[in-house]
Amino acid sequence: MALTIGIIGAGRIGKVHAENLVNRIADAQVLAIADPVQAEAEQTAARLRIPTALADYRAVLSNPDIQAVVICSSTDTHAHLIVEAAQAGKHIFCEKPIAFDLRTIDEALDAVASAGVKLQIGFNRRFDPNYARVRQAIASGEIGEPHLLRIVSRDPTPPPPAYVSVSGGMFLDMTIHDFDMARFLIGSDVTEVYTMAAVRIDPGIGAAGDVDTAVVMLRFANGVIGTIDNSRRAVYGYDQRVEVFGSQGMVHTENLYPNTAVISAGDCIRRDLPLHFFMERYTDSFIFEMRAFVEAVIKDEAVPVSGLDGRVPVAMALAARRSYDENRPVRLDEIGG
Amino acid sequence: MALTIGIIGAGRIGKVHAENLVNRIADAQVLAIADPVQAEAEQTAARLRIPTALADYRAVLSNPDIQAVVICSSTDTHAHLIVEAAQAGKHIFCEKPIAFDLRTIDEALDAVASAGVKLQIGFNRRFDPNYARVRQAIASGEIGEPHLLRIVSRDPTPPPPAYVSVSGGMFLDMTIHDFDMARFLIGSDVTEVYTMAAVRIDPGIGAAGDVDTAVVMLRFANGVIGTIDNSRRAVYGYDQRVEVFGSQGMVHTENLYPNTAVISAGDCIRRDLPLHFFMERYTDSFIFEMRAFVEAVIKDEAVPVSGLDGRVPVAMALAARRSYDENRPVRLDEIGG
Amino acid sequence: MALTIGIIGAGRIGKVHAENLVNRIADAQVLAIADPVQAEAEQTAARLRIPTALADYRAVLSNPDIQAVVICSSTDTHAHLIVEAAQAGKHIFCEKPIAFDLRTIDEALDAVASAGVKLQIGFNRRFDPNYARVRQAIASGEIGEPHLLRIVSRDPTPPPPAYVSVSGGMFLDMTIHDFDMARFLIGSDVTEVYTMAAVRIDPGIGAAGDVDTAVVMLRFANGVIGTIDNSRRAVYGYDQRVEVFGSQGMVHTENLYPNTAVISAGDCIRRDLPLHFFMERYTDSFIFEMRAFVEAVIKDEAVPVSGLDGRVPVAMALAARRSYDENRPVRLDEIGG
Amino acid sequence: MALTIGIIGAGRIGKVHAENLVNRIADAQVLAIADPVQAEAEQTAARLRIPTALADYRAVLSNPDIQAVVICSSTDTHAHLIVEAAQAGKHIFCEKPIAFDLRTIDEALDAVASAGVKLQIGFNRRFDPNYARVRQAIASGEIGEPHLLRIVSRDPTPPPPAYVSVSGGMFLDMTIHDFDMARFLIGSDVTEVYTMAAVRIDPGIGAAGDVDTAVVMLRFANGVIGTIDNSRRAVYGYDQRVEVFGSQGMVHTENLYPNTAVISAGDCIRRDLPLHFFMERYTDSFIFEMRAFVEAVIKDEAVPVSGLDGRVPVAMALAARRSYDENRPVRLDEIGG
Repeated sequence: MALTIGIIGAGRIGKVHAENLVNRIADAQVLAIADPVQAEAEQTAARLRIPTALADYRAVLSNPDIQAVVICSSTDTHAHLIVEAAQAGKHIFCEKPIAFDLRTIDEALDAVASAGVKLQIGFNRRFDPNYARVRQAIASGEIGEPHLLRIVSRDPTPPPPAYVSVSGGMFLDMTIHDFDMARFLIGSDVTEVYTMAAVRIDPGIGAAGDVDTAVVMLRFANGVIGTIDNSRRAVYGYDQRVEVFGSQGMVHTENLYPNTAVISAGDCIRRDLPLHFFMERYTDSFIFEMRAFVEAVIKDEAVPVSGLDGRVPVAMALAARRSYDENRPVRLDEIGG
Repeated sequence: MALTIGIIGAGRIGKVHAENLVNRIADAQVLAIADPVQAEAEQTAARLRIPTALADYRAVLSNPDIQAVVICSSTDTHAHLIVEAAQAGKHIFCEKPIAFDLRTIDEALDAVASAGVKLQIGFNRRFDPNYARVRQAIASGEIGEPHLLRIVSRDPTPPPPAYVSVSGGMFLDMTIHDFDMARFLIGSDVTEVYTMAAVRIDPGIGAAGDVDTAVVMLRFANGVIGTIDNSRRAVYGYDQRVEVFGSQGMVHTENLYPNTAVISAGDCIRRDLPLHFFMERYTDSFIFEMRAFVEAVIKDEAVPVSGLDGRVPVAMALAARRSYDENRPVRLDEIGG
Repeated sequence: MALTIGIIGAGRIGKVHAENLVNRIADAQVLAIADPVQAEAEQTAARLRIPTALADYRAVLSNPDIQAVVICSSTDTHAHLIVEAAQAGKHIFCEKPIAFDLRTIDEALDAVASAGVKLQIGFNRRFDPNYARVRQAIASGEIGEPHLLRIVSRDPTPPPPAYVSVSGGMFLDMTIHDFDMARFLIGSDVTEVYTMAAVRIDPGIGAAGDVDTAVVMLRFANGVIGTIDNSRRAVYGYDQRVEVFGSQGMVHTENLYPNTAVISAGDCIRRDLPLHFFMERYTDSFIFEMRAFVEAVIKDEAVPVSGLDGRVPVAMALAARRSYDENRPVRLDEIGG
Repeated sequence: MALTIGIIGAGRIGKVHAENLVNRIADAQVLAIADPVQAEAEQTAARLRIPTALADYRAVLSNPDIQAVVICSSTDTHAHLIVEAAQAGKHIFCEKPIAFDLRTIDEALDAVASAGVKLQIGFNRRFDPNYARVRQAIASGEIGEPHLLRIVSRDPTPPPPAYVSVSGGMFLDMTIHDFDMARFLIGSDVTEVYTMAAVRIDPGIGAAGDVDTAVVMLRFANGVIGTIDNSRRAVYGYDQRVEVFGSQGMVHTENLYPNTAVISAGDCIRRDLPLHFFMERYTDSFIFEMRAFVEAVIKDEAVPVSGLDGRVPVAMALAARRSYDENRPVRLDEIGG
């Protein structure tokens, strides 16, 4: 039997999940989609032949035919939607981050635990075949004991300064993916971070109290030393690479390209720019993460990205910010991490 | 309004087209699927919620609600199905090759012309983003006037010798894609071919009268000189590359890989093998060719791969074989090309 | 004891060999250099501290202290210089080609055989580390039995039409290196060739009776099928690559670059052009071939590129030209190859 | 007129400089070579036809025919040899580091300033064509304003623990090259560093008080944030790469390989390991740095790597070590940098 699903939020990422659930995941059946802007919900429902479009998410939660919800609403609603969905007995897939503070996250996780439902957090990059291959190289011992990690994560275009005021800032809206990736790849937790950061792209971001360029150094419990290298604007497009160096070798990945054509011209050897937009770059990962969620619920197995996996990167982001503010290494346990 | 479609043939490629039409092409509506093995048709229909599954393709052709048919049956049925579909007034997408001989092809094309329906041939590789980029480099003048072409096309695994007896042989079942690619990329027709070929992989293929290793040299009307390099078995997987050299530069493509991870180990620097199977390697091209067909019919525009485009590569295959048999260059006009 | 050497010819390649022998090959001692333009010989001698500079090569041949000569004079003098040097009992390193016709070559080889001296031909590319690695991959069985060979050999700039009148034409002055490479890599002889060629770069070359663009197909005695792809002008620089496909794998090489820097810019990902000039591209190979010659003489071992290795590529060039003239495959035995 | 040179130290690097000066640099004339192990000096002198071999370097300094000295002795002798050579009025090329402490360095630099001679420090990597190209990309504005720097520098094999006791430790004997590279590439000085480091390769190195794995973060005066990533043992060989990200693009380099051959086999696509040894990897840079020194002296121009350039990386190394010891960011001005 297919898993019956209600989607809460019909914005950009909600549409991606709706389309994947309807067209690419045989074991899922989307029964309803809700969005405060009801027209958005209706349009998507019509296009994908989803039977019900709603303005109020509560009608999703109260529908006894729906077994699981996919939360794609704005970040400030995630935590209380998790709580309400858990209380309604629904399994939950929720976009990241759960919240901007650990106390709110802990309340949501408590509600999930009490209800005994499953909660998967939307760290889709773990499901990208490139990073999955890196994780495999480490987990299998192909490169021996890991010693050094490097994550490059640079966006093609900076957000408007207004956005960083509500997003929690670069560490919480962008680096958070890299914090999750670091834990996922190394299979160990980070105990201390040190940050150097700057405003190099847009003074407006600085005026909004945030940074747009940063390097965060990570000390892992298992002895690995890592760095995350962020910029809000890489003129050549989305730059997403990792490198792990170990006692028996190194593994690294490259960017993805729209084609493999190389032009040898009279002035240089060149190729087209890498995939520019995160939805092109990570297309498959969104399908794979949702397939994993549906399968985990159907088979009653552990989800691959737990609520705790949603909490820790927020703690890392808070520590990275404090390190920047105070120009000193900050231990995760200082901020309840 | 969506284009209403009936699919004839529910084998491997029929399933691919059915799935793409149902899940990935919003402007198409599949009303029926037919296969002599009715269970095959029924299974696919059930999985994809296609309303009707049939054993007899004639029920597709006689259905007045169906505007277009997609012919995915065995090659020996292509020509007469084209004739019958044309006579029934259906637009036609047909897998390649149309037939093994030019007379049969010409009869089918005549029927299409008389009926005034559209016919698109399934040379999907033209829609692969890599080759499309190469074509663009040539058509836009990015590499100047083309002088030299090279196509590498090597399969991961040889077919059983029994297959080559019914497929028409390597030039007609495998090189035919490369013959089409040559014309597509260069935008000019081939006037003469010369073939060296051998049996190097499987003596059984030789016993069946075919070859498994070949190089075909091509002389184009516009002066380009090309080579096609084929093998039935590349141990490292599916090898599909092109290179075009021109007066102002060169463009070439590389194989596609399941991931970009590179392992630097103690004995070598290595990566995983390229995508192994044609359905993985050319996944997107199958979607794009079908989208182009649906759009051409709906907008009443010319299809991108015409009936003539289906005929010429068969003529090239026949010439390549004759060149091999007689060890001399063979002009296309010798065999009615 | 060092091998004592006289150099005949102080032109471009003569200077290269002189410098390598003096500065890079400890076991060689250059006693004299001769050139009809005595000033050239004197300049080089002064710069490299070679004791004697001469106008007349005969003073080199008659010098009893000189054990070996390095012939770098114009091609039309190679054969008679080989004969005279052999008669004078000198070991001989001679630039390619020995001559433009097989009879003259045979006379020179006979003189060498009668005198019992060593003769090495200057096919330097065999000593390039890239091709040497390809040869190793084939000889060691790393790619199994070879099936297909491809050689790309494109020059950065065409010679003046006047040059092709005296050089013997493209097949004899340029492709000859590729004919040698083909035999070297595959370790088998070519029995038949077929050529398509054209004038695409410079009509003046056509007016001089030569071609500037060609593909030559090769049939080897051991069943390998090969192609050589030539152009007199690649706008992106010197293009020198090979690919060998075998039953257990493929090996291919790439061009060499002045640096590994890759620029990711706002419009493309690019790198600098490959090494442009043959003397940069093949720098090391000139040292290695001369070291091999010196060592073979000192140790009285077989030279790595024999007189026969100098003869066969000339026969291949003559066959390639005849194939082009008559548009048919030509067997090597037709022209005494 | 050629610059007359005396070499002090006939060890590994002394031999490299001697050979380059004799065979590759036309404007230099080596008159003498000195080494406490006189047999070493004599062997090298004999092989390279250097007229004089000495045990005592003072005979070099007192030779009025010698204009410049090349100091290749052990590090603990560098500073006083600079002082003595300066007092003797010789121009000086000295291997890095000048000394392990800033006071000793300052005394040496004072002597050089007083004597008015030239002093070039042997940071050869600046002359590597790959890094030179990166520097050019930055200096020319090709990638805009630099924001982020990354240097990877991993050795193929750790030194014996006894070595690190006398070398000053990893930061002073290995990272020092990267500290220089950082300043060279970015064209700005570092104001603060933060280090995470560990013993992951050899406990003996830890027992000797040193680390073998480290990441050093750098804050530059011009706002760039950099990281240096070091390991004493990369099993795949010498790993030497840089990446600079800027407002208008990125430039990065790759490792160098003995050949470009790629093997596509049944289990993976692979190539041979990169150049393993620093003398192979940086061969050309040793020639180029010495040519630059000889030319600067002859033309009486500024040397490209000054005494100050020799001092600053030592200060950076001391700061990096203090940062590690105290687990806090350390400003260069704290240690007199």
